[in-house]
Amino acid sequence: MKTTPPFLAASLFCALAFTATLARAADPLPSWNEGAAKKSITAFVEKVTKEGSPDFVPVPERIATFDNDGTLWAEQPMYFQAFFIFDRIKALAPQHPEWKDKEPFASVLKGDVKSALAGGEHALLEMAMATHAGMTTEEFDQIVKAWVATAKHPKTGKLYTEMVYQPMLEVLAYLRANGFKTFIVSGGGIEFMRPWTEKVYGIPPEQVVGSSIKTKFELRDGKPVLMRLPELNFIDDKEGKPVGINQHIGRRPVAAFGNSDGDLQMLQYTSAGAGPRFCLYVHHTDAEREWSYDRESHIGKLDKGLDEANAKGWTVVSMKDDWKAIYTSNTK
Amino acid sequence: MKTTPPFLAASLFCALAFTATLARAADPLPSWNEGAAKKSITAFVEKVTKEGSPDFVPVPERIATFDNDGTLWAEQPMYFQAFFIFDRIKALAPQHPEWKDKEPFASVLKGDVKSALAGGEHALLEMAMATHAGMTTEEFDQIVKAWVATAKHPKTGKLYTEMVYQPMLEVLAYLRANGFKTFIVSGGGIEFMRPWTEKVYGIPPEQVVGSSIKTKFELRDGKPVLMRLPELNFIDDKEGKPVGINQHIGRRPVAAFGNSDGDLQMLQYTSAGAGPRFCLYVHHTDAEREWSYDRESHIGKLDKGLDEANAKGWTVVSMKDDWKAIYTSNTK
Repeated sequence: MKTTPPFLAASLFCALAFTATLARAADPLPSWNEGAAKKSITAFVEKVTKEGSPDFVPVPERIATFDNDGTLWAEQPMYFQAFFIFDRIKALAPQHPEWKDKEPFASVLKGDVKSALAGGEHALLEMAMATHAGMTTEEFDQIVKAWVATAKHPKTGKLYTEMVYQPMLEVLAYLRANGFKTFIVSGGGIEFMRPWTEKVYGIPPEQVVGSSIKTKFELRDGKPVLMRLPELNFIDDKEGKPVGINQHIGRRPVAAFGNSDGDLQMLQYTSAGAGPRFCLYVHHTDAEREWSYDRESHIGKLDKGLDEANAKGWTVVSMKDDWKAIYTSNTK
Repeated sequence: MKTTPPFLAASLFCALAFTATLARAADPLPSWNEGAAKKSITAFVEKVTKEGSPDFVPVPERIATFDNDGTLWAEQPMYFQAFFIFDRIKALAPQHPEWKDKEPFASVLKGDVKSALAGGEHALLEMAMATHAGMTTEEFDQIVKAWVATAKHPKTGKLYTEMVYQPMLEVLAYLRANGFKTFIVSGGGIEFMRPWTEKVYGIPPEQVVGSSIKTKFELRDGKPVLMRLPELNFIDDKEGKPVGINQHIGRRPVAAFGNSDGDLQMLQYTSAGAGPRFCLYVHHTDAEREWSYDRESHIGKLDKGLDEANAKGWTVVSMKDDWKAIYTSNTK
């Protein structure tokens, strides 16, 4: 074998040790202002990773779940997946001349979002099925990737993936550096998120839980594919979140992060486990840098959740006060 | 900082390098006889992990899926989960006096397995629902753990988890050592496997895909739990396996391992991906040390799969010829 001169080996050893010391000393959450919210996160992580401590959590049980819309990226003035649906309707319109006279499609094509959404959940579901089904899983993956790479938010002019919260990216990285497995548990479409979560959040497809439609195994020109069917499979919201967590992860998380009443059951389920648990709500309080909304909002309503967070002592993050930066795009 | 004398540092460095060399040289599959099957596994792994090679597969895409019954542990004379169902019926009988006169339960209680199974899939499903639902997910976890820790196979007298195949454990460890994520994709119950797969196979609950019943989020005495409902959610077999893979993993595997026609669609789906792919069938050819069965078997029938494996050049493992040892319990 090749030998290394003792002096070089010693230098290498010291350099590595010094780097490790620096890394430990660096602030893992630089976009967070000093305060109770930041401290609650680091105190929890330090507690559960300290071997021999009564609060120690073994690595395989370090499961952290994150809502997506409003928790990891913005969700106003409507869920970003709704913008995707509208853009897909416009792109597919030439193949659907009947849409010109058929609601809710007609309103979308006229650019009248309010009328398009007037039909409520039923109308949204109809539009989702018309745009999310009828192709293979791999074709849909490509459609989402192409959209995410180019579509811009109407108010900020940013790519949607630039409207990811920098402080939350730091929490994800900090948890992973401490042995946590990080999962998304979102009401959004599982196949709408997977094409970009690995690149944007460092969360691989197999750690994304979401709503889904059914798929069917088929041989197409002799090649096995999965066709996407216009049939609901699972709604990963509210009571569905703990169900989705159990179905995909099979363990109760020790930490959960959300921003709305849709996340309440996930936080309740998480906090009710034995041993140390951590629950956090992102509270949208920054009308200037992002949006300000809670109890009365149509999107991301936070009402019962806020009461329960206060009653149970969960961490409530004020975006305005606790975050130095909001979007990743502003920290580059 | 504490400094290390140069001589010690150099020794440490050399010792580490030497250990690494030894580890590389050791046979990763010691329970496999030398031959085409063993060689096909190591050749595939070496090819896809060699940086710069046209067959190189990046670590995040190194997904390997394994059937469970008949691939990782035995499945004769019936699926081990069926033994669990029968044992649960006997344990629950005092609370169900009506079962004495009601088929298929009456036959189970008389010890008449053949009559109990005469009702086919419908009867089995009825027994599964009667024994797998009506409790929380955490209660069911405890029931399975207690059973797996004590129940013995009627023919071998071994614990069921001692009837795990040592050569396949070596494949799992070898793949993981080479950056693969290993998943179970089984027709068996997802919650029947998760309580013990981490300990026995090194596969955590979040990497187990299986058949499932529905669950429902509830507050019980104020505590959030998931109740198991007597309602099918998903059958992870045949055409269901690629669907389950997509639902849970969200990527096409690069390697898949099975033993029956129930795994054929998983292997087809895997082999049809772009780039290097590996498919393997375990062929039960050892009547002496295990069981010998294939095209005519009621359990683990391997007929179309065997033809397709031969036609496509997939690896077919002969348990009799390729495996030095069968069960983990015989290698201790």
